[in-house]
Amino acid sequence: MLVKRFFLFGLLLLSVKLFCFGQATWIGYPGDYDIWLGNNVNNRRTERGAFFPPFWKMDSHYVLVEFSKEFDLKAPEEIRLYVEGRYNVKLDGKLQNGAPSRMMLPEGKHVLNIKVHNQACVPTIYVEGKTVVTDSSWKVTFEDKEWIDESGKASDKSATIYMNAAALNFNSPEQRPSLFKLSQVAMSPLSITETGKGTLVDFGKETFGYVTFHQLRGRGEVCIYYGESREEALSVDACETLDKIQVNSDNPEELTLLDSKAFRYVYIENEDSVRFENISMKYEYAPLDYRGSFRCNDEEINRIWDVAAYTLHLTSREVFLDGIKRDRWAWSGDAIQSYLMNYYLFFDTNTVTRTINLLRGKDPVTSHINTIMDYTFYWFMSIYDYYLYTGDLHFIRQIYPRMVGLMDFVLGRTNAEGMVEGLSGDWVFVDWADGFMDKQGELCFEQLLFCKSLQTMALCAGITGNETDEKKYTVLSNALFSKLETYFWDTQKKAFVHNRKGGMKSEQVTRYGNIFAVLFDYVDDEKKQAIKKNVLLNDSVMKITTPYMRFYELASLCALGEQPYVTKEIKTYWGGMLKLGATSFWEKYNPAEKGSEHYAMYGRPFGKSLCHAWGASPLYLLGKYYLGVSPVKPGYEEFSIEPSLGGLEWIKGSVPTPYGDIRVFMDKKTIKVVSPGGKGYLVFSSKSVPQSSQGKIERLGNSRYRLFLEGDGNEFVITLEG
Amino acid sequence: MLVKRFFLFGLLLLSVKLFCFGQATWIGYPGDYDIWLGNNVNNRRTERGAFFPPFWKMDSHYVLVEFSKEFDLKAPEEIRLYVEGRYNVKLDGKLQNGAPSRMMLPEGKHVLNIKVHNQACVPTIYVEGKTVVTDSSWKVTFEDKEWIDESGKASDKSATIYMNAAALNFNSPEQRPSLFKLSQVAMSPLSITETGKGTLVDFGKETFGYVTFHQLRGRGEVCIYYGESREEALSVDACETLDKIQVNSDNPEELTLLDSKAFRYVYIENEDSVRFENISMKYEYAPLDYRGSFRCNDEEINRIWDVAAYTLHLTSREVFLDGIKRDRWAWSGDAIQSYLMNYYLFFDTNTVTRTINLLRGKDPVTSHINTIMDYTFYWFMSIYDYYLYTGDLHFIRQIYPRMVGLMDFVLGRTNAEGMVEGLSGDWVFVDWADGFMDKQGELCFEQLLFCKSLQTMALCAGITGNETDEKKYTVLSNALFSKLETYFWDTQKKAFVHNRKGGMKSEQVTRYGNIFAVLFDYVDDEKKQAIKKNVLLNDSVMKITTPYMRFYELASLCALGEQPYVTKEIKTYWGGMLKLGATSFWEKYNPAEKGSEHYAMYGRPFGKSLCHAWGASPLYLLGKYYLGVSPVKPGYEEFSIEPSLGGLEWIKGSVPTPYGDIRVFMDKKTIKVVSPGGKGYLVFSSKSVPQSSQGKIERLGNSRYRLFLEGDGNEFVITLEG
Repeated sequence: MLVKRFFLFGLLLLSVKLFCFGQATWIGYPGDYDIWLGNNVNNRRTERGAFFPPFWKMDSHYVLVEFSKEFDLKAPEEIRLYVEGRYNVKLDGKLQNGAPSRMMLPEGKHVLNIKVHNQACVPTIYVEGKTVVTDSSWKVTFEDKEWIDESGKASDKSATIYMNAAALNFNSPEQRPSLFKLSQVAMSPLSITETGKGTLVDFGKETFGYVTFHQLRGRGEVCIYYGESREEALSVDACETLDKIQVNSDNPEELTLLDSKAFRYVYIENEDSVRFENISMKYEYAPLDYRGSFRCNDEEINRIWDVAAYTLHLTSREVFLDGIKRDRWAWSGDAIQSYLMNYYLFFDTNTVTRTINLLRGKDPVTSHINTIMDYTFYWFMSIYDYYLYTGDLHFIRQIYPRMVGLMDFVLGRTNAEGMVEGLSGDWVFVDWADGFMDKQGELCFEQLLFCKSLQTMALCAGITGNETDEKKYTVLSNALFSKLETYFWDTQKKAFVHNRKGGMKSEQVTRYGNIFAVLFDYVDDEKKQAIKKNVLLNDSVMKITTPYMRFYELASLCALGEQPYVTKEIKTYWGGMLKLGATSFWEKYNPAEKGSEHYAMYGRPFGKSLCHAWGASPLYLLGKYYLGVSPVKPGYEEFSIEPSLGGLEWIKGSVPTPYGDIRVFMDKKTIKVVSPGGKGYLVFSSKSVPQSSQGKIERLGNSRYRLFLEGDGNEFVITLEG
Repeated sequence: MLVKRFFLFGLLLLSVKLFCFGQATWIGYPGDYDIWLGNNVNNRRTERGAFFPPFWKMDSHYVLVEFSKEFDLKAPEEIRLYVEGRYNVKLDGKLQNGAPSRMMLPEGKHVLNIKVHNQACVPTIYVEGKTVVTDSSWKVTFEDKEWIDESGKASDKSATIYMNAAALNFNSPEQRPSLFKLSQVAMSPLSITETGKGTLVDFGKETFGYVTFHQLRGRGEVCIYYGESREEALSVDACETLDKIQVNSDNPEELTLLDSKAFRYVYIENEDSVRFENISMKYEYAPLDYRGSFRCNDEEINRIWDVAAYTLHLTSREVFLDGIKRDRWAWSGDAIQSYLMNYYLFFDTNTVTRTINLLRGKDPVTSHINTIMDYTFYWFMSIYDYYLYTGDLHFIRQIYPRMVGLMDFVLGRTNAEGMVEGLSGDWVFVDWADGFMDKQGELCFEQLLFCKSLQTMALCAGITGNETDEKKYTVLSNALFSKLETYFWDTQKKAFVHNRKGGMKSEQVTRYGNIFAVLFDYVDDEKKQAIKKNVLLNDSVMKITTPYMRFYELASLCALGEQPYVTKEIKTYWGGMLKLGATSFWEKYNPAEKGSEHYAMYGRPFGKSLCHAWGASPLYLLGKYYLGVSPVKPGYEEFSIEPSLGGLEWIKGSVPTPYGDIRVFMDKKTIKVVSPGGKGYLVFSSKSVPQSSQGKIERLGNSRYRLFLEGDGNEFVITLEG
């Protein structure tokens, strides 16, 4: 396990650091492979056998790309070239004959250029020499602007915009990026039963992959109906996904279907002329390590954590998907939650940046991300989150111009107040709500997210050294911030109202804006307490029935120190799904619904997704607010650990960081932490004077203490009782 | 021939008119197929066996497109669907199972939607029913923005931008757009001779296509060196294009090479272990009708017209190419001349719009077209030319947003004077010149083209009903126009100077700006005469040595009534190339050069293209200024014929229009014209009172007369001697 951890750590460094030496990797234009692969993923959604692609603009990679590398060799060396696409090679500006697959590089300073065209897949290259290897130090452009005049002199290329190539982390010539597939393993069903006119197969839990028929013989049609529930699989007219195949003598006896599906149950009806002996499935999954962990004395919470981890794993694929049955698209609002949970489970950076790149797509911006206003704002926020957790400055530099482009789009749609309202073509989503939610006018919730996005722009401008932009976005965010309380705080109700229409504050109070005002720390303590009392803990305010918005609701309550209350909520809400037989967490769960009502959504009896990434939020809540681990400086260079029992007897677990895993144990008498590196602060309360196995405990006042954590792999044991 | 003409006329109407009934055709997103096909063409350039793609941004088609059609049927009807790509079908918003290849449409009003994904090729569809057929009345979008809320209600799509689909003029299910190929016909060589270590094959004239080996046997390497000249083919180390193939027992005995090349000569060196008995080639060509014609008493001029027509035909391919040997890319400055010549020869509209779409590409605009400032301006100008010749308002509407986008790019790069200068990354081309040409500061030539482009924007804004834009561009063009004489006219030299640097007029006078001031009618008659004397007919001003700029130079002289002078120039310049053995016209011709100097360019001994579209300008000059035919209102709804003998005894010929061909004959005593439709004006001079076979001749004064031409196919015979 230790070896595995180190290997993963190495991989992380590889993807996080700008320059890596020695190891060749396939490279491409930044973001392009992510868009291409993500398109493939988004296009795998089907609805009852019909292709169901997204309704937003699907971008394409740059089909013609030039890679270049300046090198300085002490001795000549041979390189081998592997290319996805048609290509040419120049050495010091001289075009080489044909398309060489190997060539000698002379000693001294030289420049190598490789230009690749590929319409169907992404132009990528893999070059391997003794010292010259493809990595993210190579430059790449989609227009080199190198023309020659009538004398043959090449133009100056000072205006050509070069980016650092994206290292795709496929580290051998055979791992051609276009051939990439997730891992697969064969799985047997729990039971196979003759049911009605067909066969019902139960795989025991929610799963994802390809159904395999064994000893398939004969000739005729076989219909395969998938269900996340038994009811769905048996409902041949209303199940959300299905396959129909024609069997004939050309089929192999062992036939695995070509399209992946999500299901627990599979119901098969075949013509009498066809027979098969057995059924299994190929489970498809992203090969990710479970680095984060959580255990406590409450077995229901432990089970919730496990099912949440499985839910996140099922939805963490080539990109982070919302759900695996019906939706199967990357959605920004869903994805930001997956990223945050991922930082407490897999700490996989590639899938985060891939999803961010896919969601942004390319210029021109013609609509909000996924057409949803709030999803645009989550996209901005997710980038600073990513930087904070990973410290990957290279990625911020690479994505920054696209952040500016998207913010330009948003700023082009603000009203006279500098606020955002849903214009024609904008989807103001917020949440699925069981009750009326006004989407008209200026929503408090949207302004808060917009303000946070402007602050994110200012932060990222600062990080990447764009001072003018930093000032601009600071001015804009301050201007908007200064209006928030005036325009939305109701001094009678002592809460933020939902929206403002025609310059008038509305009467409705909803949870959304209030939650984010607390989470973003946009209000003082007095208002926070008022929000807690008047909104968050007030049952007369419309309840949230999606795990999606419960993520933020419970996070805001944790931020207010209400872990014991949150523990109960987790047990009731996620425990409620488990009691209904959930083997993965759902898109929406309203405890007031009964029986098969739980499966319905979008006007369809089985429209609801029973495996939705946003269902897995306990992963984040338990890691961030119970184990209490969070980065203070980018990439965990500094971090804080502020553990909380939340009413439990004991908790323990690990949280992944770029330095390795932080381990935390706490009961009522002891705290134990292991810090793998970086500079940490353990903050805790103790009624009596605590003792530490090492280091000096600092008293913060009000029963609060702090201990500085240093060294790699040191265990600190704190005794809380005097 | 008449039938053929009518057929062509029908095709024209099909492509020019917005709505056509009954005939199904493959449809796609406007411009996308042109970009995709054009990319394929641009990627066929090779240099000594190496792939040689462009240095500018290569765009991609929209990979996901939604087609829709509202229909109202009196009776149910079955449609068949043919699709390039993966697709789904909705009827009245309801997704159909799977991907139907046929379906019944119910009677009454309904909506059909077909959504197609294709990354490698362009998403296109062909639907054929009794009345419901794919044509340009179908709507198309790259983002339908149709989402559903939790109740299943679909969003309103009022903000979705729909375009009319592009009819691709492939009119049967089998003619899949992605499979389109130009026509081919086998051609035998004029001679095959053993030369040096190999075999020299002479095809007798410049040609284009694929070399075929007959009775090819053995095993080993065969090297094929191409030459537009004998010298080039024999120069195995310096010829511009070559192929190397490995022959083995798997090869068919008759082997046609996969890549097309341009050549007259082919020199083949093969290993002794390989033998072949014969060589031929497959000539590849666009199947275009020679509608325009020109004949006169001077056989050299007739030969020039024929070679010019052949040159244009060789370079008129899927798009209009600059040259067929080395360059093989679409270039805007070259293309506008091809378009203008095409209006006097083929009158093929598809290749014009395809090239315009390819050149423009997609947003965002990141550089000038082909990176060349002047080429951006020619692009704007070519669009109004196209409208004037064809009357295709539908295309203007479709391209207008992209015109605005490109002009925004230009306006973002003007200096404090509102003028354009070459900024970093801009190629200020103007012309290849044998002598120093300053490219710094504000070039008079570039400002003239910019001004004309702004006027074009105003015109097209007006045509498409964008009043605000029309005003904006009128103000901008007027502002620029008002500065032209002040800033560039030298009152001493009585000519426009070449440029202005640091606010100072330069001393150099070149032909470029002066030519366009005359052509654009930007100066009064006095200044025109001064330009003629001081610049155009002044040998001390740097001479033009490309047919490219001679096109405009001679056109401006024709506009000044100097046809007799131009006739001599045509005979000297183009006749000069013929005397050197040209079988197609060249990229550059400097009569002062000797022998193999004529083949050299770009610092390479055979760098010059001996078949360059811009070499074919006599087609335009003779059609427009000798036969004298030009449109007055869009699509020849009104036209003028102002024939000129230019010192010849007699001339005759035809000029294609959307109504059919205008025919003109003239000698010193007679003018005969046949008008196929539209309203025409014949304008001519006569020393004595002329007589007409029909219609009433109007006297304009100063020996000038006018005759109104009406009716379809009427011949008017005018007797000039009293």
